[in-house]
Amino acid sequence: MQFKIATLPGDGIGPEIVEQAVKAMKSVGEVFNHEFDFQYAEVGASAIDKVGEPYPEATHNLCMESDAVLFGAIGDPKYDNDPSAKVRPEQGLLKMRKLLGLYANIRPVVTFPSLNYKSPLKEEIVEGSDFVVIRELTGGIYFGEPRGRSEDGNTAFDTCVYKREEVERILELAYEYAAKRRKHLTVVDKANVLGTSRLWREVAQKMEKEHADIQTEYMFVDNAAMQLIQWPKKFDVMVTENMFGDILSDEASVITGSMGLLPSASVGVHTSVFEPIHGSYPQATGKNIANPIATILSAAMLLESLDLMKEAEAIRNAVNQVIEESYLTEDLNSDNAKSTTEVGDKIAELI
Amino acid sequence: MQFKIATLPGDGIGPEIVEQAVKAMKSVGEVFNHEFDFQYAEVGASAIDKVGEPYPEATHNLCMESDAVLFGAIGDPKYDNDPSAKVRPEQGLLKMRKLLGLYANIRPVVTFPSLNYKSPLKEEIVEGSDFVVIRELTGGIYFGEPRGRSEDGNTAFDTCVYKREEVERILELAYEYAAKRRKHLTVVDKANVLGTSRLWREVAQKMEKEHADIQTEYMFVDNAAMQLIQWPKKFDVMVTENMFGDILSDEASVITGSMGLLPSASVGVHTSVFEPIHGSYPQATGKNIANPIATILSAAMLLESLDLMKEAEAIRNAVNQVIEESYLTEDLNSDNAKSTTEVGDKIAELI
Ligand SMILES: CC(C)[C@H](C(=O)O)[C@@H](O)C(=O)O
Ligand SMILES: CC(C)[C@H](C(=O)O)[C@@H](O)C(=O)O
Repeated sequence: MQFKIATLPGDGIGPEIVEQAVKAMKSVGEVFNHEFDFQYAEVGASAIDKVGEPYPEATHNLCMESDAVLFGAIGDPKYDNDPSAKVRPEQGLLKMRKLLGLYANIRPVVTFPSLNYKSPLKEEIVEGSDFVVIRELTGGIYFGEPRGRSEDGNTAFDTCVYKREEVERILELAYEYAAKRRKHLTVVDKANVLGTSRLWREVAQKMEKEHADIQTEYMFVDNAAMQLIQWPKKFDVMVTENMFGDILSDEASVITGSMGLLPSASVGVHTSVFEPIHGSYPQATGKNIANPIATILSAAMLLESLDLMKEAEAIRNAVNQVIEESYLTEDLNSDNAKSTTEVGDKIAELI
Repeated sequence: MQFKIATLPGDGIGPEIVEQAVKAMKSVGEVFNHEFDFQYAEVGASAIDKVGEPYPEATHNLCMESDAVLFGAIGDPKYDNDPSAKVRPEQGLLKMRKLLGLYANIRPVVTFPSLNYKSPLKEEIVEGSDFVVIRELTGGIYFGEPRGRSEDGNTAFDTCVYKREEVERILELAYEYAAKRRKHLTVVDKANVLGTSRLWREVAQKMEKEHADIQTEYMFVDNAAMQLIQWPKKFDVMVTENMFGDILSDEASVITGSMGLLPSASVGVHTSVFEPIHGSYPQATGKNIANPIATILSAAMLLESLDLMKEAEAIRNAVNQVIEESYLTEDLNSDNAKSTTEVGDKIAELI
């Protein structure tokens, strides 16, 4: 089969790691007889530098006509000190999410037995953890209007808004994930304080009845922030709104200690975007030391979204093998570190 | 000296643990020749049961005329399943915060060497952690208007609002704490997305210049949620807005593994409230097994707020001694557990 893949390397280590994922997908293409047409486009700080816009129209058009988007990372230290600057890389990200309708960010958190020692948590607490955080990505306080400043500049405000359909859509997806997994769903909100959370809970309590095979649990966000650390194993699928999801999914990502391995998918109305959860890691740029595995596993999620299940499996098996052999970059093997391209080549070869 | 202490035991284990703190303060009174006049009032679910209101006017009036408020816990399982119920214990808490002007919640997080093994984090990560989380408590999305539902019930909204003075007031307090400690302040916001966070950052960047002796660091909330787990030792004073503070202060409270030991102060315009950070722990109610130390250490913070520094020190020394001797309740000493009253008596005696 033939697939068009919008390829957006972005900033920092983005280009280096995306190249390894492209290599892995090309191997998959050869083995399984598919043709992946990788079309490159600009995004992030590098797009601002070139065309003055972090998510240019040409990039958007390419994404709209593609079967999927492979994304690296965005962000450049030169934008870090002034969050109110007029044009910033993050705005490109938010615009992309909105225009592509990327309503759900999916982050599987799994442990790799040989790497549990890397976790800041005790091994007995983290070992065997295996859950998915599903974050609503196009609603809530990220996009609600009105937002801004009073005329005198002394009062600032943001609006958190959710519509019933938005909540239903993301919960439906969460129930699908739970049905394919251990049939347990944790709905995280702050329904004891927020009006939007009460809508979430109302919708969830209705949908719970239609999904009687799934055990639905409700948890306040402050409690979830604690339980993620205390009992990560108890979670199967966690679903929450945009801002809580931003915080909890990042919190969840450090408990395994191997952030460089975690992929993500942002499921969209028009197309879906696959990217590692780590950032653009500017200090490592160009040094050929960045860990490409999270991006390669994101490519595996991309293949699954195209219903190429065996193909995704081939990538995962190759990744498991380099991990077992400790054929890894310096973040995970400081004694005998391999380079980004060495790890990428090895995975491509194993496929 | 003479002090009037509004004493609000509340729900669940509240009465049992508050009684131990009262005992400790009475010992302090004898030793240092002060008179503490403990006046009791209702709050929470028990107040709803008695007078239909979780924060009755009589309770409010008592707090207003007191030098400080000693608070237990609120919350009862019978209110847990319906967050949209008309009268709920939490509403009493929010009303109390608003009416007493409790604008700052202060939560010191410290480790006790002999109890580090209790932490879900590895000992080398948690040991020596010593920081304070300061949460703005009367603004933001907890109280902003408008909030609620559209007429058709299909759109829900909340408003996050901050005024410049509110941000200045809490940052001023945070700088005072930092000045008395290791002179490092982490201001947590989401200035890359939120208008209110940009106001926070603008105010902080101005105040930073007036506090040149303090090192001010800015951190996005998602990053803070990660770093709290990865490098808790790096923090000294962390300050943030209400909702982020709710999440991060609870996250911070579990990293030491001894939640039963952590006190808090809510500093107010009219008076201040001192309470343990743990909840009403309904399962333990009436069993004489709850750990009273967090409440007793809250009493120490109360004494400090009245400028009774030596008196507070006497409480802390007694607490340290029972911890060293492992004269502790079952949460911290399962082999040879003491009861709530035994620990309370021992601390009172040591004072
Ligand atoms: C960069 C920022 C706007 C973004 C977000 O808050 O969504 C990031 O933290 C993420 O989680 O992808
Ligand atoms: C009970 C709830 C309203 C409250 C809050 O969110 O502030 C609690 O979680 C707390 O932190 O004191």
